[in-house]
Amino acid sequence: MRIARFSLNGEPKFGIVDGPELVVLKGHPLVQGYDTTGERVPLKDVKLLAPTIPSKVVCVGKNFADHAGELGLEIHPEPTLFFKPSSSIVGPGDAIVLPAQSKRVELEVELTIVIGQIAKNVSENDALNYVWGFTIANDVTARDLQFSDAQWARSKAFDTFCPLGPWIETEFVPDGQMLESRVDGEVKQQASIGGMLHNIPEIISYVSANMTLLPGDVILTGTPSGIFPIKSGELVECEIEGIGTLINPVV
Amino acid sequence: MRIARFSLNGEPKFGIVDGPELVVLKGHPLVQGYDTTGERVPLKDVKLLAPTIPSKVVCVGKNFADHAGELGLEIHPEPTLFFKPSSSIVGPGDAIVLPAQSKRVELEVELTIVIGQIAKNVSENDALNYVWGFTIANDVTARDLQFSDAQWARSKAFDTFCPLGPWIETEFVPDGQMLESRVDGEVKQQASIGGMLHNIPEIISYVSANMTLLPGDVILTGTPSGIFPIKSGELVECEIEGIGTLINPVV
Repeated sequence: MRIARFSLNGEPKFGIVDGPELVVLKGHPLVQGYDTTGERVPLKDVKLLAPTIPSKVVCVGKNFADHAGELGLEIHPEPTLFFKPSSSIVGPGDAIVLPAQSKRVELEVELTIVIGQIAKNVSENDALNYVWGFTIANDVTARDLQFSDAQWARSKAFDTFCPLGPWIETEFVPDGQMLESRVDGEVKQQASIGGMLHNIPEIISYVSANMTLLPGDVILTGTPSGIFPIKSGELVECEIEGIGTLINPVV
Repeated sequence: MRIARFSLNGEPKFGIVDGPELVVLKGHPLVQGYDTTGERVPLKDVKLLAPTIPSKVVCVGKNFADHAGELGLEIHPEPTLFFKPSSSIVGPGDAIVLPAQSKRVELEVELTIVIGQIAKNVSENDALNYVWGFTIANDVTARDLQFSDAQWARSKAFDTFCPLGPWIETEFVPDGQMLESRVDGEVKQQASIGGMLHNIPEIISYVSANMTLLPGDVILTGTPSGIFPIKSGELVECEIEGIGTLINPVV
């Protein structure tokens, strides 16, 4: 099932994607379940929004060896965590705005876990039971500031630096699917999620051992090599096999 | 004016501190203003909560030269930013829970800005107009993990690692007031906020140039030297002249 969040006559709603249509839900599916209003709207007539409103955006850095290599970064045995603020989140189709502070902003396609229930000290075996579904994030990064700043925080925190979407796929089971990013149609990153140093259950277990995850929270699971500077006027696509494609223009 | 958030018969409420009493407010003061219900309750009869529910917790690192020195850290010309997740927030009197992952958890008293209105690209001159008030935070840190991890994220993100309170002082004007932390009554940190490398207007202007601040968001403005390991059974007090004292037991 694909759960989208969208704006209908100016009001945010959730819906189930059914081919070219959305079946409108009565409320937040994690609170009110999947009761529908009976209304159906064509997908092409609505503005999709980021499919979740997380209380926190947890990110795993250096989770593909080739990407750590291209940045010249040492791999630690444990996952490297950092945060993006929720003010950086935008939806499908929203512009990525290049800040004046950076001379080099880059894309990063990432498989994104959406948490479905409170998760604290969850075992790897049990981890997938805490997942609502999966979506796609672009962990947009001001690469120059990432290295000139002491921490990976500001460089990843600008407004519009966390496109999320296009929807949450609740039936996605991580199993070697392909990630791909494109700029104006040209492939920049292409890798299997099988290449992750820490797999999805490991990540959920590790994060939940270190902080409580709340329903709607997201974990961005890292990007493969091929990161690429983006420029005003370009169109960035992040695709994950079995989920869909997150498309954002750059301004 | 001192604005507290508290639990009254299990329901969260805001109130104005009036000597030993709280004057109960109808709603969230940033939304519904300062209309009161007419009810008054003794402060000693309620459980104080963290006085704000921020969409993000922005922290400024290395903002006192002597603290950067005691950690052996280089000072950058611009403020060093990092984030704590909202899941780390607790209120006055709540326990700081030491995680098994760390052998050395330390306290850090910090003057904390509470944002009152949407702030984006705010000038230093105008910065204080965007402040709702000031409170106190303890930026509890797993010091060993801060240096063994690649980023300052997990080490500062454990549940209970962000005590906030006891209230928001809306009339506090930063002007050399003293910060102090104590463990079981013994003074550990003591410094004037005049010793900050980046002052409050600079910090607000800088953060708002890099991300949009929302009403209720907090900025922790850095800690002076004297950081100290805390142990189970101890009582930690963080006091700021003109605001009050934030007290938390360690378990």
